[in-house]
Amino acid sequence: MSHKIFSHIPPIEYKGANNKDPMAFNFYEAEREIYGKTMRDHLRFSVCYWHSFNWLGNDVFGDGAFHRPWLTGENDHQDALHKLDAAFDFFERLGASFFCFHDVDIAARANSVKELTENIKKISEPLAKKMLDTDIKLLWGTANLFSHPRYMAGAATNPNPEIFKCAAAQVHCMLETTHQLNGENYVLWGGREGYDTLLNTDIKQELEQLARFLSLVVEHKHKIGFKGTLLIEPKPHEPTKHQYDRDVATVVAFLERYDLQEEIKLNIEANHATMAGSSFEHEVANAFALDAFGSIDINRGDPQNGWDTDQFHNDPKEIALVMRHILLNGGMKNGGFNFDAKLRRQSIDADDLFIAHIGGIDNLARGLINGVKLIEEKVLNDFLEKRYQDWFSEEGQRILSGELSLEELSKFAQDPEPTSGKQEFLENYVNRIIG
Amino acid sequence: MSHKIFSHIPPIEYKGANNKDPMAFNFYEAEREIYGKTMRDHLRFSVCYWHSFNWLGNDVFGDGAFHRPWLTGENDHQDALHKLDAAFDFFERLGASFFCFHDVDIAARANSVKELTENIKKISEPLAKKMLDTDIKLLWGTANLFSHPRYMAGAATNPNPEIFKCAAAQVHCMLETTHQLNGENYVLWGGREGYDTLLNTDIKQELEQLARFLSLVVEHKHKIGFKGTLLIEPKPHEPTKHQYDRDVATVVAFLERYDLQEEIKLNIEANHATMAGSSFEHEVANAFALDAFGSIDINRGDPQNGWDTDQFHNDPKEIALVMRHILLNGGMKNGGFNFDAKLRRQSIDADDLFIAHIGGIDNLARGLINGVKLIEEKVLNDFLEKRYQDWFSEEGQRILSGELSLEELSKFAQDPEPTSGKQEFLENYVNRIIG
Amino acid sequence: MSHKIFSHIPPIEYKGANNKDPMAFNFYEAEREIYGKTMRDHLRFSVCYWHSFNWLGNDVFGDGAFHRPWLTGENDHQDALHKLDAAFDFFERLGASFFCFHDVDIAARANSVKELTENIKKISEPLAKKMLDTDIKLLWGTANLFSHPRYMAGAATNPNPEIFKCAAAQVHCMLETTHQLNGENYVLWGGREGYDTLLNTDIKQELEQLARFLSLVVEHKHKIGFKGTLLIEPKPHEPTKHQYDRDVATVVAFLERYDLQEEIKLNIEANHATMAGSSFEHEVANAFALDAFGSIDINRGDPQNGWDTDQFHNDPKEIALVMRHILLNGGMKNGGFNFDAKLRRQSIDADDLFIAHIGGIDNLARGLINGVKLIEEKVLNDFLEKRYQDWFSEEGQRILSGELSLEELSKFAQDPEPTSGKQEFLENYVNRIIG
Amino acid sequence: MSHKIFSHIPPIEYKGANNKDPMAFNFYEAEREIYGKTMRDHLRFSVCYWHSFNWLGNDVFGDGAFHRPWLTGENDHQDALHKLDAAFDFFERLGASFFCFHDVDIAARANSVKELTENIKKISEPLAKKMLDTDIKLLWGTANLFSHPRYMAGAATNPNPEIFKCAAAQVHCMLETTHQLNGENYVLWGGREGYDTLLNTDIKQELEQLARFLSLVVEHKHKIGFKGTLLIEPKPHEPTKHQYDRDVATVVAFLERYDLQEEIKLNIEANHATMAGSSFEHEVANAFALDAFGSIDINRGDPQNGWDTDQFHNDPKEIALVMRHILLNGGMKNGGFNFDAKLRRQSIDADDLFIAHIGGIDNLARGLINGVKLIEEKVLNDFLEKRYQDWFSEEGQRILSGELSLEELSKFAQDPEPTSGKQEFLENYVNRIIG
Repeated sequence: MSHKIFSHIPPIEYKGANNKDPMAFNFYEAEREIYGKTMRDHLRFSVCYWHSFNWLGNDVFGDGAFHRPWLTGENDHQDALHKLDAAFDFFERLGASFFCFHDVDIAARANSVKELTENIKKISEPLAKKMLDTDIKLLWGTANLFSHPRYMAGAATNPNPEIFKCAAAQVHCMLETTHQLNGENYVLWGGREGYDTLLNTDIKQELEQLARFLSLVVEHKHKIGFKGTLLIEPKPHEPTKHQYDRDVATVVAFLERYDLQEEIKLNIEANHATMAGSSFEHEVANAFALDAFGSIDINRGDPQNGWDTDQFHNDPKEIALVMRHILLNGGMKNGGFNFDAKLRRQSIDADDLFIAHIGGIDNLARGLINGVKLIEEKVLNDFLEKRYQDWFSEEGQRILSGELSLEELSKFAQDPEPTSGKQEFLENYVNRIIG
Repeated sequence: MSHKIFSHIPPIEYKGANNKDPMAFNFYEAEREIYGKTMRDHLRFSVCYWHSFNWLGNDVFGDGAFHRPWLTGENDHQDALHKLDAAFDFFERLGASFFCFHDVDIAARANSVKELTENIKKISEPLAKKMLDTDIKLLWGTANLFSHPRYMAGAATNPNPEIFKCAAAQVHCMLETTHQLNGENYVLWGGREGYDTLLNTDIKQELEQLARFLSLVVEHKHKIGFKGTLLIEPKPHEPTKHQYDRDVATVVAFLERYDLQEEIKLNIEANHATMAGSSFEHEVANAFALDAFGSIDINRGDPQNGWDTDQFHNDPKEIALVMRHILLNGGMKNGGFNFDAKLRRQSIDADDLFIAHIGGIDNLARGLINGVKLIEEKVLNDFLEKRYQDWFSEEGQRILSGELSLEELSKFAQDPEPTSGKQEFLENYVNRIIG
Repeated sequence: MSHKIFSHIPPIEYKGANNKDPMAFNFYEAEREIYGKTMRDHLRFSVCYWHSFNWLGNDVFGDGAFHRPWLTGENDHQDALHKLDAAFDFFERLGASFFCFHDVDIAARANSVKELTENIKKISEPLAKKMLDTDIKLLWGTANLFSHPRYMAGAATNPNPEIFKCAAAQVHCMLETTHQLNGENYVLWGGREGYDTLLNTDIKQELEQLARFLSLVVEHKHKIGFKGTLLIEPKPHEPTKHQYDRDVATVVAFLERYDLQEEIKLNIEANHATMAGSSFEHEVANAFALDAFGSIDINRGDPQNGWDTDQFHNDPKEIALVMRHILLNGGMKNGGFNFDAKLRRQSIDADDLFIAHIGGIDNLARGLINGVKLIEEKVLNDFLEKRYQDWFSEEGQRILSGELSLEELSKFAQDPEPTSGKQEFLENYVNRIIG
Repeated sequence: MSHKIFSHIPPIEYKGANNKDPMAFNFYEAEREIYGKTMRDHLRFSVCYWHSFNWLGNDVFGDGAFHRPWLTGENDHQDALHKLDAAFDFFERLGASFFCFHDVDIAARANSVKELTENIKKISEPLAKKMLDTDIKLLWGTANLFSHPRYMAGAATNPNPEIFKCAAAQVHCMLETTHQLNGENYVLWGGREGYDTLLNTDIKQELEQLARFLSLVVEHKHKIGFKGTLLIEPKPHEPTKHQYDRDVATVVAFLERYDLQEEIKLNIEANHATMAGSSFEHEVANAFALDAFGSIDINRGDPQNGWDTDQFHNDPKEIALVMRHILLNGGMKNGGFNFDAKLRRQSIDADDLFIAHIGGIDNLARGLINGVKLIEEKVLNDFLEKRYQDWFSEEGQRILSGELSLEELSKFAQDPEPTSGKQEFLENYVNRIIG
């Protein structure tokens, strides 16, 4: 059939670090054991439906450039079935264990929420069968609450409660679908939960609505017995001028204010971290510090460009540092690395979709290998332990426990010998390991 | 005496909107009643010691360019007294009711925390006398926990508890001094409470230390009966790569996590808001939405330049929008507008210090006048009321109160008629009022 | 007919600064004489086809939200005719004297360059008739060399000369069409003349191609006797990672290198200036300093958002400063202010398209009025004259003319008295005028 | 003597890639031959005086934190001699072949330009002797035309010609000094050649002054027979709001406009490239494309921070890509890699100054090794050759030579088969090589 654009591509295999075959892994060996688990189980990487199977390479200034036989423009159930075939064909050849999707990604186009629900149900069965046949699992499901014009002023934060109800219906359907498909998590990205201008916006009112919405989802999750984790994905802006779920700290704050911090964790996207003026490593480290880590959308932006370029991540050093935080905090659990990344618009070959993912997976694998080295050599951890050791002295602990008052502390204030922060030493060390 | 560089300047007076005298106010009439209070009482503006009396016009690439006779380089008590004369001379001629300072701004240079404490005590008495003589009040006091090299790795978040104790001693002294001087607030800016590299940093440990430090300050405040408000001033970075007190949302999150939200409010700086990738108006609106507003450091950055330029604010439109939020939430209370702004390095004339403040004050006064117009014409408020009105219907309230479940809401989901967000209409309206 | 969505709207009229009708001008009086010309002749504002008549309100994350009866999805000649009716209906009601378009904006969708050429010819005649009937003129024409996938790797800078030929054909057709329609300028925006990665790019080769392409256009212009100005529109990036025509200075450099500076001038877009890390005022001032000013695309970005938001400009102060440069340099000549601005996606009412343009036009009109004031009061010009006056002394002129050598100058070096730059004084002055 | 803070440190040696000694090179072997030259001759790295020997670790918010015994505060000739000893002691232990300095860096503090000239002369002799004794050469000299308040409104672009003369005197002195010391280049960084506000600035006038100044330098260079290269160092802003020498393209434009492009080349600083919203690789590639490459200031900024952080570069991938351009264009010639980089303020140990430079040098060495691999494997070059090959066909050459007109090209326009840009393939390839 015409949509079998990957049929010439054999399964992607590991061929060693020096092999020059662009259609092979240089670093990723799925079954290699490292730090107590296989690479596959450490990374739990996932392919996303939207960028890889629903996007034609269009951008704000240009039309679609890709050949995707299943995107005929009809966008009917037949297209959805063809897309399903193509996607799972791709997953299998790539060796992916997980995938992710929004409701609208997998189903035929719908004119109403009701129709969408029906279309989802219709495609769920063949999808479940595919999953069973291939043993490929759902890392997370989600509902698209930002593309349809009804959500132009937000979904949960919409000034109109009727839209809130539409959003409730989509999430209701997708949470149940995710549950039926044994999804390991459910993600909420508030793409339009924010504002375009403060002139027409009541922040306080909208935050109340958002909190109520999240509570409804939590309640329903428990009602149906869904065991996966609920995740919020922070982003500072785009498409809105300002999105409420700006970054890790902001989302955790919101969850604590509404007592949802035990129920909802975070799906951190690398490119969103940099758009927020922060770093991917900071967002991951901060999520662990605040006990809020859930999963990762792995991609990157371009430091020259101020929009969400969603490129495939290609900096193994950054991954090693992030992986170090993950491993020191017990590894991925039911999260994973979802490739929320898209091809460059000129990458029109069928092979390019593989090449991009191969690069991304190898990048994660190298990060894993180097992250383990960073931990096992103990240089960083020893340094940190020594740096903060005085806080673990008797006096340090008395200060932290609140036994000493401001006045008491004041009395004994005296300048100690200064010590170097050793930033360049640590940077050189990391560079040597990762090099 | 040689430090009387302002003696040729008569008190600054209001001369009307069309007057061309650069040494007069065009909009600020201190005793004019508007929206229930005098302009003076609405604005509660304050002159800061550091930029205006301790800075010689040096920058990272250049030496001091200003003539400030009280900055002889000795930095002894005699200099401190001359500076005090000059500062209060300026305050009076300008018509300021408030000023602000860090401990190190007013006192002779010290080689240790202990010596600093003594120097503060020594200058406190003449300072108190000046305040009494002139009826000029202290908007807030603060301790400088970032300039001395001992704080290079943070104050409360320092890996060394000895530094924590030094910080405790400085704050102890300044909180008491502020109390004695009847200061209306006490500010904490965590200039180095953050990190330069994650490689040598334990975020979780440092946040614990910061929380303990703030609790100590709260406890001491109550112990001595200080009635002013404790304020944290958010900033995302500079001098550190990353500062924990990033923005309003982040600080409020932190306060809630450690149950300090009732005790500590926010001092919002305009330039820090824009450095955080947000807007001044957003930070103020968000502070009110989160019940955390305290006071304002008024200045601006340059959209082309990524550092803290601390220029005098000169956009009356932005002030009007901010003022609208303040007035709708009950006005300034014990906060104020502190001119945390510095001259451009080329502005070397004694007059320039007046001119810059006159521009800043007039800018606030126009913002106040226009903010009142925006409220009294009710166009914005009526628009907002109408936009969210369905949330105040019976069904809207049932949703918000949690009576309806996700499933129940799903059943009745149906697309309503879309309505325009009217952004351009609202922008045109605001422009017409403010123009 | 169903596409007459503006029929309920009477012609927009001037009603005075305090009038509250959102469908009227507060400042723009077309026939009012000021500084030697009517407002209409000063501003020469233009409505653009693409944002206002070809866009449905879709963005990267969302589908179209607008009701535009002429955009049926067929995109055939019948649609093109309906669009023409709607556009000119709008122009007339608004009181616009000019409009702008890309080839693809006005014609039916084409599958090849050849077909596009034919479609353009087919619509040209009814278009010319509309122009004649309404006396609305073409400010500039342009060819869209960025939307079609063939241009994904550039048009003139494409690695494949076949694409260069396609671009040549489109520009050939549009230059002739613009000539036939008596267009006053012809614009070249190199939307994809740049790169996505340096790894697959030969900058030197691509610049040579671009220079050749521009020369071809210049040659053809002279061949057919087109009297309008050729204009390049700078932009630093988006959609590409890096666009060669980065900013005014870069484009002028390129033109000088290839000896095209007499033939091609600049169309400066406000939002592109800020995306380049510069300011709109700088780009205009620099264009005049380099004798390269041509025309303006008037819009604005959002300082929080790093992409081309293309909002309607609404800062009259910025316009006043820009207008001052334009007026001091002889006014607009055959350029104009083209509203390359789009509605916010929530602004779905037919009225909103008017309201947005009314705000933009009033903004220009206020800028004009205030710019004239700034000139006539002479404060700024007197200040500048005085500041640089020593360069017009005999010695200053001898230095500039090259009569004095480095050694001779060295001998007489001696520090003069420093003088203040008076930035705050000048800022206060401008604020008073514009307020 | 007390200033011998490095006496405990043995000469830095190469110990192999896996050696863990932080005071040894892992990659840099000075005498190793690669790609036709020793590593030493490829890199020609240089240590700078200003950050490493004149800076105490102060920043905008903090005082000096470093122990530098030669910076006593006297800043007299004795201090200058101690500094000279310390600097050359450091150069030798590190194995540096080159250094760089500003006039004010090496000499005692002066109260006038005349005194500065005398101080320079006084220190020149011992400096020349040091150079002779150690065989360490001057990569470039430069005059500091930005720190002294006299230059607050610019040096060559100052509104006051008297300041222009002071600048002439400083450059006259330093050009001669550089000549006497056999400096290989002379650098001009226009730190304050720009503006803080357009309100008090005449761009055109200031550019004329700047051009005259550069011409004076060129004329004097030829007069005294200096054979080194004159270099301009671009930067977009900081300390000024806008600096005229924004980036490579802008400076080349300026040079061409005043016919100076044969006489003056570019000193490209990595951090300045990123501050300009561009990339280091772009600036280097563009300089070669425009035949303007001269030398490099190697450092990096922080993508989160919008000021000039001047950190030691630590991304070997970026260096490899830059090195590829340099090697393909014939290598460094009389330029070099100058470490215009400073320690983090917490790096207070004497060792830290070595560690930072060791990391920087190793980073360059790895970049060199990998850059050579990228060239020798030919994957990138083959790809580029193939990509542009049609431009070297007969028709391609006819187009470029101008034989074919717009009309002729139009006639044969036809869409070719699209080809993939292969960005991800190329990125994966580079990552594999460099990893």
